[in-house]
Amino acid sequence: MRQLHFNAFLWGCGHHGAAWRHPDSPAERLGDIGYYEELARTAERGLLDAVFFADGHAVRDPAAGAWWFLEPLTALSAMARATERVGLVTTVSTTFSQPFPAARMLASLDHISGGRIGWNVVTSMFDAEARNYGLESMPAHEDRYARAGEFVDVALALWDSWGEQALEFDRNGRFADPDQVRSIDHRGAHFRVDGPLTVPRSPQGRPVLFQAGASGPGRDLAARCAEGIYSVAYDKDSAIGYRRDVRRRVRDAGRDPDAVTVMPGLVTYVGSTVEEARAKKAELDALLPTAQSLDQLSLFVQQDAHAWDLDAPVPPLPPLSEFTGPQGRYQTILTIVEKDRPTVRELLGTLAAGGGHATMIGTPESIADEIEDWFRSGAADGFNLMPPRYPDHLEDFVDEVIPVLARRGLFRTEYTAATLRGHLAG
Amino acid sequence: MRQLHFNAFLWGCGHHGAAWRHPDSPAERLGDIGYYEELARTAERGLLDAVFFADGHAVRDPAAGAWWFLEPLTALSAMARATERVGLVTTVSTTFSQPFPAARMLASLDHISGGRIGWNVVTSMFDAEARNYGLESMPAHEDRYARAGEFVDVALALWDSWGEQALEFDRNGRFADPDQVRSIDHRGAHFRVDGPLTVPRSPQGRPVLFQAGASGPGRDLAARCAEGIYSVAYDKDSAIGYRRDVRRRVRDAGRDPDAVTVMPGLVTYVGSTVEEARAKKAELDALLPTAQSLDQLSLFVQQDAHAWDLDAPVPPLPPLSEFTGPQGRYQTILTIVEKDRPTVRELLGTLAAGGGHATMIGTPESIADEIEDWFRSGAADGFNLMPPRYPDHLEDFVDEVIPVLARRGLFRTEYTAATLRGHLAG
Repeated sequence: MRQLHFNAFLWGCGHHGAAWRHPDSPAERLGDIGYYEELARTAERGLLDAVFFADGHAVRDPAAGAWWFLEPLTALSAMARATERVGLVTTVSTTFSQPFPAARMLASLDHISGGRIGWNVVTSMFDAEARNYGLESMPAHEDRYARAGEFVDVALALWDSWGEQALEFDRNGRFADPDQVRSIDHRGAHFRVDGPLTVPRSPQGRPVLFQAGASGPGRDLAARCAEGIYSVAYDKDSAIGYRRDVRRRVRDAGRDPDAVTVMPGLVTYVGSTVEEARAKKAELDALLPTAQSLDQLSLFVQQDAHAWDLDAPVPPLPPLSEFTGPQGRYQTILTIVEKDRPTVRELLGTLAAGGGHATMIGTPESIADEIEDWFRSGAADGFNLMPPRYPDHLEDFVDEVIPVLARRGLFRTEYTAATLRGHLAG
Repeated sequence: MRQLHFNAFLWGCGHHGAAWRHPDSPAERLGDIGYYEELARTAERGLLDAVFFADGHAVRDPAAGAWWFLEPLTALSAMARATERVGLVTTVSTTFSQPFPAARMLASLDHISGGRIGWNVVTSMFDAEARNYGLESMPAHEDRYARAGEFVDVALALWDSWGEQALEFDRNGRFADPDQVRSIDHRGAHFRVDGPLTVPRSPQGRPVLFQAGASGPGRDLAARCAEGIYSVAYDKDSAIGYRRDVRRRVRDAGRDPDAVTVMPGLVTYVGSTVEEARAKKAELDALLPTAQSLDQLSLFVQQDAHAWDLDAPVPPLPPLSEFTGPQGRYQTILTIVEKDRPTVRELLGTLAAGGGHATMIGTPESIADEIEDWFRSGAADGFNLMPPRYPDHLEDFVDEVIPVLARRGLFRTEYTAATLRGHLAG
């Protein structure tokens, strides 16, 4: 039977914007590699496919948190040594890096981890990041994707530049067979790279490629090369639509859609009762600095939300067709309001934890039901877990929800592969 | 009393060109991070200041060995977690990297290691490397050093962009104080970097800078910013001359010469008798592919060395004043021949292990004598150890020579500091 796949999306103290304000939060440990090693071990205890680091190249508001405290490639190396089986996925920007050093570090990590590395290919977004790399602002979207496509091609060629049998270790002869260590002599619009890579072929040959592009060019890049896709969908129907679209693009690119694992982001609050689960959300929601959250909400809905009663239901909102501001986030808000009938404070909390990502609140059984429903409906091949608060909410999922899914035959009961690619295929 | 300082210069299976051909060599483990972790633990057992990775960005002759198998920054992260006290120095090229990601990874490693990171600043050398980074050939020497100087300035500014008291973790207030997280707004000939760094201030504040430049601009860069200098000297007199010159430049740059640790490379063969030590060298020398080594020697001396008797003394060579080829290496050969009266095979072996670096062959006591003599003569503040064969020859030094130096009061008997900068100051 087809199996679910789970990644744990690591993100500071958790995906809820107020997570670091919780009394038990690991705020003081964000620069302590031991914290990330523990999260990776928890993910491994849950037999998850991988842990995953996003990445960014600019400081946001220091008063509101520290994003990107440790650099992901250096952190993942230590985490690889603290675990044995769980996959390790890192983001590397094709806009800010060069293919030779990126391919080199990823191959090195694939050796260090024994074949458990994945690369989330991103093109980055913010001008503040560009200004740390000599640019005035971000290159245009289509230029970024053109560069990304070429970047990936060069990386793949570099990973293949050492043949599988290249290393000989013949003490009376050759260390390696020069005929199996080949230049790539790439000349393109963005890069010139002669190769070969300095790193001999790694355990997976090629680290596993992930992509999260939502735009057309992003989806096409994913269709051409990704084995895992991180997507965004608040509700099952839009997840089904997204997955159907990317599977079509994968097929159009001449690849097998079943070889691509589509994983929407998933925020979960797990309790022994629904009330307990709701209380976990309410506890975090109560820690949000309201004035700031209402500022943001006012922007999203293009009206003054400060006048609203925090503990009353969200007042009626005009339909999308009458809305003149940015539509994506407004559509998500309409969906949340229609589906969940939240109070204003609950809405702020939902937006503060993963924003428009799927949110499931309930018992292990009820959340397993929802996950199974998404899975069987073709909305997802698995999920990119976004625990609102680390480490507790990851532990809740690993220790409470995973066993239910395993009993139903929807998730592994032990690792059967040694590599990340092996986990995704299982 | 002033103390010696030692780094272990990690280099594949050892610094002798035939090291990987030895029956016990770790050739098959060059992609196994466990091998490097073990070397770091051995260095730590010896209370050395640090282990050190050189770096390169192009494959050399694959038949003759694998250089740069693992990428050093990723390797050092794992090694940091396998050790507790020893420093960890990595090379990062200012020609091929950008200051923002380089400063970021080094700061991240400084957090991961608890303040044990050093950065060996290099400008790189080879066109084959440049051609993996979009260039046709290496930029001119003075352009590389101009870029290196600006690169270092940007990195230092980024490391200072988070104040020491920036992090507050005030759950009812601010995560960090925005006034202590400052942009650097660098605009220079080579780089534009706004900052601040994404990584909050690391345990050492600034990772420790090392430099190995032998040229004038290289020495001046070292004088301006390095706390450790890797140098090259086959004999004590040239080491004294080099150290005197860089100390003068450090003083001219307005810094205290005693705050800069000058460490010439040092190849050692340690035996319980001089004969046993010589036998260790002879064992490796015998593994050298002679035809290839004689090709190289013929180039160095500008005559056909293939006709020479391998086991007879090196025939008389014309003085430097009559020599028309490249002078540096020829001068080293003249020095070796004059000082050691080697056979041709012995000369090939000496050149194959560290080339023109100091070479000491003898008992723990005799080598300690030589080291003490260099130290007391002002030739060195310590040494960058280049064991001909890993791991055995590092173990020889750590277990046999270090205790002699410690008994003489010339080297620590325990770590007294937690950071690399603390080790160098001790």
